Amino acid sequence: MKIAVLGTGVVGQAHAQKLSQLGHKVFMGTNDPTKTKARTKIDQMSRPGIGIWLEVNPAVKLCNFQTAAQNAELIINATNGQSSLKILSGIKKDIASKVLIDISNPLDFSKGFPPTLSVCNNDSLAEQIQKALPKARVVKAFNTTNASVQVDPGRVAKADHHLFIAGNDQDAKGQVIKLAKQQYGWKNILDLGDIKSARGMEMILPIWLQIMNSLNSADFNFKIAR
Amino acid sequence: MKIAVLGTGVVGQAHAQKLSQLGHKVFMGTNDPTKTKARTKIDQMSRPGIGIWLEVNPAVKLCNFQTAAQNAELIINATNGQSSLKILSGIKKDIASKVLIDISNPLDFSKGFPPTLSVCNNDSLAEQIQKALPKARVVKAFNTTNASVQVDPGRVAKADHHLFIAGNDQDAKGQVIKLAKQQYGWKNILDLGDIKSARGMEMILPIWLQIMNSLNSADFNFKIAR
Repeated sequence: MKIAVLGTGVVGQAHAQKLSQLGHKVFMGTNDPTKTKARTKIDQMSRPGIGIWLEVNPAVKLCNFQTAAQNAELIINATNGQSSLKILSGIKKDIASKVLIDISNPLDFSKGFPPTLSVCNNDSLAEQIQKALPKARVVKAFNTTNASVQVDPGRVAKADHHLFIAGNDQDAKGQVIKLAKQQYGWKNILDLGDIKSARGMEMILPIWLQIMNSLNSADFNFKIAR
Repeated sequence: MKIAVLGTGVVGQAHAQKLSQLGHKVFMGTNDPTKTKARTKIDQMSRPGIGIWLEVNPAVKLCNFQTAAQNAELIINATNGQSSLKILSGIKKDIASKVLIDISNPLDFSKGFPPTLSVCNNDSLAEQIQKALPKARVVKAFNTTNASVQVDPGRVAKADHHLFIAGNDQDAKGQVIKLAKQQYGWKNILDLGDIKSARGMEMILPIWLQIMNSLNSADFNFKIAR
């Protein structure tokens, strides 16, 4: 399958690498490919720059956001939540009615840690994206756990935990569930309803960050115990 | 132990009944005891009015908020989140430096279901309470699961799920952990840090409500899978 992964951060890298390893043709979207390739320095988290990552993952094709979206049958939004709406609005025609998996979180780090959400409570970033791109079939998913767990749920508690999804298009949600189960290995997926349910999924981020701090690890996920 | 349970709703009833059954002397606080006792009608959820509940639980002593707080060594705030700050501020001197377990959620149902939060993101109800009652040792706890599970965690997945707590006073949190473990049977308690962490605990409510809708049951809780 031809898949666009928009964004070159930790989340974008995780999905692009995994999907590429699974044999999919992955187009990684960025604002300026030349500048992105030039980023080779080690970052604050001791991770090599995206330029190095691209050399290690030669099957992933870096291109600008528009080309990535045009080439793809399925689009994953892993851009920074503060930029997502602008980036996606700019390639609205290229996304058209494709399935758009939105992983972004509207985290605002401008006042330090812990961040606040730049939209919440009576609206959500996913709803804003759906409103700006009314034809796109937006499915909120994966944003409630860390990047490594998103693409490899089995690394935590033998995948005995939950992935939440929300979206207006039932067929699109079905495609995302299929991807999550068959490609990534998710066992438990809970459909929370239409795109408005993205509010709760994004508002879980503050406690997620606090749990990460308390455990001193991001390698966990929420399980709905019954 | 002498315990005040402020509030006569489902959460207050659950704690008052359980603590009373465990042999504690429970003072249930309300605004006007005479009016509260007169409420005997079946409610929308097919539950008998509090007046009937009090007859079935004669060991629970109903009194006004002030008397309940004065009589108690430990205070549980189970009042409606839209009224909590006003009620607690009014009995500030009676609460003084006692441990105050805050279960309330700032849910605003004025625009229907799903409710929004009347405070969130850069503040929380628990922080507002702590600010209004600086001497009180506020511990946010129990608000992230339903009333029945709060006092009987074993009814779900053999108690294999998590209780979150937050507060500034380490000794107060120790007392709440002891109560939760030894009296109610909680197995897993995660301390999220100071009272600011109540933000995340209160902001989990929207997804909690969505999960309840999706499962068509409130009998669940979050487990941190690792």
